[in-house]
Amino acid sequence: MSSQFHRIALWGRTSDTAVADLTAVIAAQLRHRGIEVFVDAAAHNSSALADCRVLPEGPLTDAVDLLISIGGDGTMLTAARRVAGAPVPILGVNLGRLGFLTDIRPEKVDVAIASVLEGDYIAEERLLLRASLLRNGEDSSDTLATLAFNDVVLQKGSSGRMFDFDTVIGGTFVNRHSGDGLIVATPTGSTAYALSCGGPIIEPSVNALVMVPICPHTLSDRPLVVPASSKVEVTLADTDEPPAHVSCDGEEIGEMGPKDKLWIESADETVSLLHPRDHSYYELLRSKLNWGKASRSGGRERSM
Amino acid sequence: MSSQFHRIALWGRTSDTAVADLTAVIAAQLRHRGIEVFVDAAAHNSSALADCRVLPEGPLTDAVDLLISIGGDGTMLTAARRVAGAPVPILGVNLGRLGFLTDIRPEKVDVAIASVLEGDYIAEERLLLRASLLRNGEDSSDTLATLAFNDVVLQKGSSGRMFDFDTVIGGTFVNRHSGDGLIVATPTGSTAYALSCGGPIIEPSVNALVMVPICPHTLSDRPLVVPASSKVEVTLADTDEPPAHVSCDGEEIGEMGPKDKLWIESADETVSLLHPRDHSYYELLRSKLNWGKASRSGGRERSM
Amino acid sequence: MSSQFHRIALWGRTSDTAVADLTAVIAAQLRHRGIEVFVDAAAHNSSALADCRVLPEGPLTDAVDLLISIGGDGTMLTAARRVAGAPVPILGVNLGRLGFLTDIRPEKVDVAIASVLEGDYIAEERLLLRASLLRNGEDSSDTLATLAFNDVVLQKGSSGRMFDFDTVIGGTFVNRHSGDGLIVATPTGSTAYALSCGGPIIEPSVNALVMVPICPHTLSDRPLVVPASSKVEVTLADTDEPPAHVSCDGEEIGEMGPKDKLWIESADETVSLLHPRDHSYYELLRSKLNWGKASRSGGRERSM
Amino acid sequence: MSSQFHRIALWGRTSDTAVADLTAVIAAQLRHRGIEVFVDAAAHNSSALADCRVLPEGPLTDAVDLLISIGGDGTMLTAARRVAGAPVPILGVNLGRLGFLTDIRPEKVDVAIASVLEGDYIAEERLLLRASLLRNGEDSSDTLATLAFNDVVLQKGSSGRMFDFDTVIGGTFVNRHSGDGLIVATPTGSTAYALSCGGPIIEPSVNALVMVPICPHTLSDRPLVVPASSKVEVTLADTDEPPAHVSCDGEEIGEMGPKDKLWIESADETVSLLHPRDHSYYELLRSKLNWGKASRSGGRERSM
Repeated sequence: MSSQFHRIALWGRTSDTAVADLTAVIAAQLRHRGIEVFVDAAAHNSSALADCRVLPEGPLTDAVDLLISIGGDGTMLTAARRVAGAPVPILGVNLGRLGFLTDIRPEKVDVAIASVLEGDYIAEERLLLRASLLRNGEDSSDTLATLAFNDVVLQKGSSGRMFDFDTVIGGTFVNRHSGDGLIVATPTGSTAYALSCGGPIIEPSVNALVMVPICPHTLSDRPLVVPASSKVEVTLADTDEPPAHVSCDGEEIGEMGPKDKLWIESADETVSLLHPRDHSYYELLRSKLNWGKASRSGGRERSM
Repeated sequence: MSSQFHRIALWGRTSDTAVADLTAVIAAQLRHRGIEVFVDAAAHNSSALADCRVLPEGPLTDAVDLLISIGGDGTMLTAARRVAGAPVPILGVNLGRLGFLTDIRPEKVDVAIASVLEGDYIAEERLLLRASLLRNGEDSSDTLATLAFNDVVLQKGSSGRMFDFDTVIGGTFVNRHSGDGLIVATPTGSTAYALSCGGPIIEPSVNALVMVPICPHTLSDRPLVVPASSKVEVTLADTDEPPAHVSCDGEEIGEMGPKDKLWIESADETVSLLHPRDHSYYELLRSKLNWGKASRSGGRERSM
Repeated sequence: MSSQFHRIALWGRTSDTAVADLTAVIAAQLRHRGIEVFVDAAAHNSSALADCRVLPEGPLTDAVDLLISIGGDGTMLTAARRVAGAPVPILGVNLGRLGFLTDIRPEKVDVAIASVLEGDYIAEERLLLRASLLRNGEDSSDTLATLAFNDVVLQKGSSGRMFDFDTVIGGTFVNRHSGDGLIVATPTGSTAYALSCGGPIIEPSVNALVMVPICPHTLSDRPLVVPASSKVEVTLADTDEPPAHVSCDGEEIGEMGPKDKLWIESADETVSLLHPRDHSYYELLRSKLNWGKASRSGGRERSM
Repeated sequence: MSSQFHRIALWGRTSDTAVADLTAVIAAQLRHRGIEVFVDAAAHNSSALADCRVLPEGPLTDAVDLLISIGGDGTMLTAARRVAGAPVPILGVNLGRLGFLTDIRPEKVDVAIASVLEGDYIAEERLLLRASLLRNGEDSSDTLATLAFNDVVLQKGSSGRMFDFDTVIGGTFVNRHSGDGLIVATPTGSTAYALSCGGPIIEPSVNALVMVPICPHTLSDRPLVVPASSKVEVTLADTDEPPAHVSCDGEEIGEMGPKDKLWIESADETVSLLHPRDHSYYELLRSKLNWGKASRSGGRERSM
């Protein structure tokens, strides 16, 4: 049976030996099936991957039909921003324990990849965010780097002190917040930093974003779930504070001063994740969040 | 200009004098405009409302064109279940301070109602839940009483002890929970009981439900936002516990034993809320949640 | 070397075969050392324990020198209330996985008990609470049953609806709460139900209690740590609600109506726990709370 | 009647006109009673305060008998560190709304100060923390600046990324944390930054500290209340991260690298706060935390 995937990129931090080794194994498996395998220039220098082709620079468009991300969720984040908007789905192979995004275990990689190549998979569309930092009213950073798969985070600057900022959605004032900052997360990002700050888990197919204040001064300033179509504007409330920091998926994209505006909305681009047929998001949650394992005392033991 | 609303029901707990008085004022205003005014049988007994017509029993269908709920959010909850599925929108007049649902203050009622009658309003569609308690596999309570505007709540029974229960969505197992129970809330209900249990605020136009565990044994058993199309099944995990209690919008609908199944999904019926043109959901949040008012110490005061 | 413990009670739910078996093993080990072993009447009926002596009814005073609790934390709770105030320390043997209170694993029971008998242990004093339910101003339940090792819990009654209640400490009004109830916990109980309701972990040697509101209506109604010497009074704020439920360590002690007063304070009695020399409370926390195990996504993986 | 207070320091940020005005009013009141009034050099430059004496530099020891802090809680924090260890109690006058620490309102300042001078007050001893940053094993910052009245905070450095750090108490390993940092707070500080991060409120007379992880990666990494006698050591777990920031009461005291150790314990010095006779800590909580004001929807309204 002929696969729909003829050119596949392998994506991973091959400076890590374990990643490099697994990448070589997968590359061999794919080439054995007559598939053209691409790696980035750094990986290509490795002798084990020297037979692969080199990925072109810049956003992937139609150079490959599929990207296999090898590593952890962090590797997947960079993969997602790289293929965003291109007709290139991603398959995530974990190294070590299960990730939220990379749900194929290394020991099952042979069978899982074979199944996917034969068309036996679930495809899932995921939202991305686009963050634009407008300086003095002008957009200066509307580049690829401002796509986010997990979250856009505004956080306090070098003073380490809480700051005040205003949020507006679709032109309507929402709130003046005081605290350590704000996370705007996709459903994908709801199980990342936002979860540590009290945000809910959002099932990936929910068409929504969540705004989670970081350590807010007002205790009722709680996470707010808004439609994915929301256009969120954030501005600083004070003119005499050090600039705040803006990051996408943990990578800083710039500092934000009192005359700047941070504009966050769903990107036009989405990402398509492929999963094995038996994939269950809830099973991932149970595994990653240790659901069902004991935590506090008490439980249901009968007393005497 | 002629209004689209010719027959209007006034809905409130008129055994409360303040509600009865405000109802009479509104009734007079409406009749002055030539509108037929309906009240329920209990209210009709009041001399001030004796000129009104009596609402028919049962669900409202086409008896009236509009229902005005007079009181607080609790009164609105019963109104919503009463008109669910009928082409009867609701306008909420608060008695005293602003409610989340009843956003017309009594002192502005004249102008606000006049504007609405003249077609100057915002209409907003809200989700309802349908809860069905299936006994031994058979549906025994699929009646009107099981619609919920805020939430369906499963909580521990008379033992006062935590219990174990399983959740399934769309046929897929989600989790075995231990704790005091579970809330399944609409966006409307997200600012009610669910908020006290750590759930997020969900903007009403988000097409989603939220499942909030009540005092869960496992600390990572966090609120979960799922698509509004989700079909949630809940069953008890143990056969030897006292039955759990199921309620809709705070009204108990029955006890649930180990062979029963609680089935929760979005209802086919929705409710249409009318708001004044200057309505802002976020302004309601700011007001009701005391946003911007001081809370913890610290703040932004400069020290010496 | 001669032990200070000559008469030892074995305490466990021996209707559970695993408990009965372990109890018999420990009984044999102790008798082999010439120690008199006591079990309760129910256990004594078991042939394997027929050689043991029968514990007297009522509170233990000087019948034994040591009690070994065999089972889980729930078994320990009943043991603690039984020996409260008597010069009888408790050693906790867990059945299965580690408990917060029962920190000797079954596979190490031989060595651990031998060490304790030889005087090689850490003794730790733990607080108990005394709850008194005063009806119409009169104390009607000041009995043994109202000691609590973990917590005293006031929770909503059969209506399942939130209720209002007032708290007073040392004669000073604290707050009118609305919600599902209140937990007053010892440091021991801080890792039990109180933890599920947002309370902090309190190291057992801290001389304090914690008052944790259950699902409070007001989001800033947060857990409050008060000195162990605090005398806490709770009364219902409404006269027309169904009575609330009061329980100690999960056992209901009575219903509380609008004319009643719940009085909670540290008991004069304490309990002495014995631990192996290498006991670490923090190790228990790490193990029980899955500290260090993965939870949310993100982590410290370097991205590409 | 002769007062025990003959020399009083007025402490406030007099570059703020409102503070300067209130300071002048209080200075006049005190001088009228024959009391020597001291202000700092900056305040002394103001013509209205030119008649006052100038406070000596450095820690206050026996230069004055009482310090009146005029401003907000932040001003009080600096006052507390200044008088720490000296027999100089502090009276806090708020400017504007009530503070947690400064509980005399400006409109009552005449009567309140008169009462205190006549000996009619409540004195309350408060804990301070001492933070020492040990570089390569050597103590390099054990200076006055490292006293803290509210809290010592370790937070992530300029990368904005979560980091791993280890806590040890009294030589016993507690946990390896991942997250944005750690707060160690006094009971006084429990209502400041720690409250925003999920910590409990600790009544000021409780002899304890609380360790509150900031946005922890592991959801069960919860606030931990430990005895005030605890000696807390914190070290970074990684050698290749940017240094973390350490601050006391919001003032940065230094950066902490992988070879450094942060050592936090109760200071030998304490601070004595004076309050009016009718002072109630719980009344402060009710006022500052908006207890009793509406928050979420639902409440106790009866539905129809």
